[in-house]
Amino acid sequence: MTTLNRKHLLGLEGVSAEEIGLILDTAESFKEVSERPVKKVPALRGQTIVNLFFEPSTRTRISFELAEKRLSADTVNFSASTSSVKKGETLRDTAENIEAMKIDMIVIRHGSPGAPHFLAGLIDATVVNAGDGAHEHPTQGLLDLFTLREKWGSLRGRKVVVVGDITHSRVARSNIYGLVTLDAEVTVCGPPTLVPPGIEALGVKVEHRLERALEGADAVNVLRIQLERQKAGLFPSTDEYATRWGVNRRVLERAKPDCVVMHPGPINRGIEIAQDVADFERSVILEQVTNGVAVRMAVLYLLSGGEAPAREPEAEEQSGELRAVRKDKEMV
Amino acid sequence: MTTLNRKHLLGLEGVSAEEIGLILDTAESFKEVSERPVKKVPALRGQTIVNLFFEPSTRTRISFELAEKRLSADTVNFSASTSSVKKGETLRDTAENIEAMKIDMIVIRHGSPGAPHFLAGLIDATVVNAGDGAHEHPTQGLLDLFTLREKWGSLRGRKVVVVGDITHSRVARSNIYGLVTLDAEVTVCGPPTLVPPGIEALGVKVEHRLERALEGADAVNVLRIQLERQKAGLFPSTDEYATRWGVNRRVLERAKPDCVVMHPGPINRGIEIAQDVADFERSVILEQVTNGVAVRMAVLYLLSGGEAPAREPEAEEQSGELRAVRKDKEMV
Amino acid sequence: MTTLNRKHLLGLEGVSAEEIGLILDTAESFKEVSERPVKKVPALRGQTIVNLFFEPSTRTRISFELAEKRLSADTVNFSASTSSVKKGETLRDTAENIEAMKIDMIVIRHGSPGAPHFLAGLIDATVVNAGDGAHEHPTQGLLDLFTLREKWGSLRGRKVVVVGDITHSRVARSNIYGLVTLDAEVTVCGPPTLVPPGIEALGVKVEHRLERALEGADAVNVLRIQLERQKAGLFPSTDEYATRWGVNRRVLERAKPDCVVMHPGPINRGIEIAQDVADFERSVILEQVTNGVAVRMAVLYLLSGGEAPAREPEAEEQSGELRAVRKDKEMV
Repeated sequence: MTTLNRKHLLGLEGVSAEEIGLILDTAESFKEVSERPVKKVPALRGQTIVNLFFEPSTRTRISFELAEKRLSADTVNFSASTSSVKKGETLRDTAENIEAMKIDMIVIRHGSPGAPHFLAGLIDATVVNAGDGAHEHPTQGLLDLFTLREKWGSLRGRKVVVVGDITHSRVARSNIYGLVTLDAEVTVCGPPTLVPPGIEALGVKVEHRLERALEGADAVNVLRIQLERQKAGLFPSTDEYATRWGVNRRVLERAKPDCVVMHPGPINRGIEIAQDVADFERSVILEQVTNGVAVRMAVLYLLSGGEAPAREPEAEEQSGELRAVRKDKEMV
Repeated sequence: MTTLNRKHLLGLEGVSAEEIGLILDTAESFKEVSERPVKKVPALRGQTIVNLFFEPSTRTRISFELAEKRLSADTVNFSASTSSVKKGETLRDTAENIEAMKIDMIVIRHGSPGAPHFLAGLIDATVVNAGDGAHEHPTQGLLDLFTLREKWGSLRGRKVVVVGDITHSRVARSNIYGLVTLDAEVTVCGPPTLVPPGIEALGVKVEHRLERALEGADAVNVLRIQLERQKAGLFPSTDEYATRWGVNRRVLERAKPDCVVMHPGPINRGIEIAQDVADFERSVILEQVTNGVAVRMAVLYLLSGGEAPAREPEAEEQSGELRAVRKDKEMV
Repeated sequence: MTTLNRKHLLGLEGVSAEEIGLILDTAESFKEVSERPVKKVPALRGQTIVNLFFEPSTRTRISFELAEKRLSADTVNFSASTSSVKKGETLRDTAENIEAMKIDMIVIRHGSPGAPHFLAGLIDATVVNAGDGAHEHPTQGLLDLFTLREKWGSLRGRKVVVVGDITHSRVARSNIYGLVTLDAEVTVCGPPTLVPPGIEALGVKVEHRLERALEGADAVNVLRIQLERQKAGLFPSTDEYATRWGVNRRVLERAKPDCVVMHPGPINRGIEIAQDVADFERSVILEQVTNGVAVRMAVLYLLSGGEAPAREPEAEEQSGELRAVRKDKEMV
């Protein structure tokens, strides 16, 4: 498998281990591009990508924008509050209009689960989900997988604990799909009010007590707690949350000594993660951010019909560029 | 005529049929560029264009931005609420400052009619009007002409009906100037409160009843109704508006069987245009959007001194690029 | 000296006359680039610059963005209200995240004095201060020096008067450091409430009466008065301010006949500067704006390790491009 036979990336549900492997292999090559003095390959030159963000986002938008520019694509940003796009029809009109301008790809973030799927059903352009409500955030899932694979080689049999508000987290969902597909052993942990009943059906274990969940863990992925959930009565206070589900050095003693600590950012220091854990040596939070650009470059490149780079590192070294042979859609 | 002997595009009033022809011919070549895998020509490489938008706009801004990027220009966006630019002097200061940064072109949208003309009188850069109050929106007018010419070859003698709030519509005004110049027969139609008295002087007919206006029409251009006009008492209710001036399948039976339906977007479905008409086979609303990018590329290219492409399609095919021979302003 | 042995530009305090000379020499070459039909050199191709603006700014942001694009860098804009970044830790998290995306440079404007220094201590990327609270605005200082040097050749012994709210002005502070370093004689002038006691320690004279301050002046740099200072009781009324510290033709008669008038913009016409002075022949306000782009290009280029262009104008003419030999940081 050297090309991704997919037009869209809407979620990690249903994406095979082989496909994930192809994306992560390609991201490895692109990670090297971002280390060069000239951080640019011509792979998507003359292609147009619209970043359609209906929810405010800084990190994800900048990460996608950098990925696009490093692939030499032309990018246009479109930000809107969900309020101006209340009706499905308006999203449809917006999308059809943008597509009529001959866009190649749309990267969409939207507050409603399924918005990217709705879009993909309507238009010819490639759609990449950059987060849809509490549903999926597949490039975040992929960058988490990339980060763990870089540490371990293989995820098979590794114990990964996802801690926090599982119910409302698109990061959790995309992580679970990807981790289970790569044969990791996944435990989710959080207040009973924030773990959906029946989630075991996705192939994960549930453990509400953090001490027990972390027992023997190889990695812990700490989710950002949304403070508005507290107002909704879903947990009593940030202090109590920090005491019972906050990840700190003491509770990490239950995990393996080299347990990796992840967080999708931005961090609420002292709430879901202790100050000294966010910055300590086993935290890979900033590596995740670095890997995010590479993974997004790989996703955009492969969805545009690009071929994965050859696995002989010598050949790659010689050419000095990712081979940008594109399977041209018009020619199929 | 192979070059446009104009520095600015402030409106379609006074633009000759020959000039319009030159722009539309050039847009035809550029439309082909947006269909390529690599949607880019080097025509404006190293030129700087500022998009100066004093009114919120998504579609027009994105359309111009894409046109600029596909011409390889460097673009900078500037958005401001009109409130911060209350006095003419401040617009002047803003413009002089931007020009001092050695900008080649300014694309301006402004709530005050005449703002682009004011600007053009002050600065050396080329000014393109992207909509000034209720005055003109010349690139919208041109893309509407382009769309009709693509259908018909010639507009001479064709009956085009413009329906809606004629008084407050810059789209109506630019359409009227362009259509009359190309010898179309134009009828305007709308509530008596929204059609300016004496508009016949522009060479159009007035008919307040939609059924009569559409009799034998070749095209109908449906304007967006601004809901705030209702609050101002200019029409009684959206329901009544829809009943009397909304374009639906039933009333379209009065028009020619192949009557083309246009709308500048965004659509108020069910008010000025019925749901089934917006999407039906004779609607060219999305083609208008596609053509908008090509027309804007042509305008920017020709105003920069570019030469219209040769009309021998073989030669053009061979070179694979628009010949970007620029009549350099500095050399004149 | 042909390269700048500095990683960051945080202020003009402590920057030597030789360093300033190198920047201004380089800016001269870049000024010529902005006059070309193709306003672009490949000096920073493939480098990524983030414009991190925590305070609203139009002119400075556009000036930096143009400088970056004319150097062929990839640029990403990030705007945030200071309110969302209340804690130093959050600025730190934001910066570390952006840096993890392998950014080469960060241009930062922030309401808190010292924010750029804080950043520079944390991250590997080059930091350029685009204004930090009332502290410094070094590229504004440099463009003012450039403008004066262009007029005079040397600033040594020239009398420069800075008028206005000295206490709260980062422009004043950067001007003072730079002017004193280049051996100009600096007088500051303003209401006693708006001139910090002890400022003579920076090597300047203080004179509260404008008539006396302007006696024999070669240049006057008029600061923008912030109207909110009046509410704070720091001056009685804009009328009284205009009468006592507003620069008009009458008071300019005290200065030398060819006294240069500068203003960092945007202008409050009729308050700190009279209408007829803002536009008159000795005003260089728009030249300052033009020079701002060239100076910023020079700063970004030199901080990236670029070499100043050779001073033989013939050689430069021949190559047609700034020689972009970069002292590669990775090789040091």
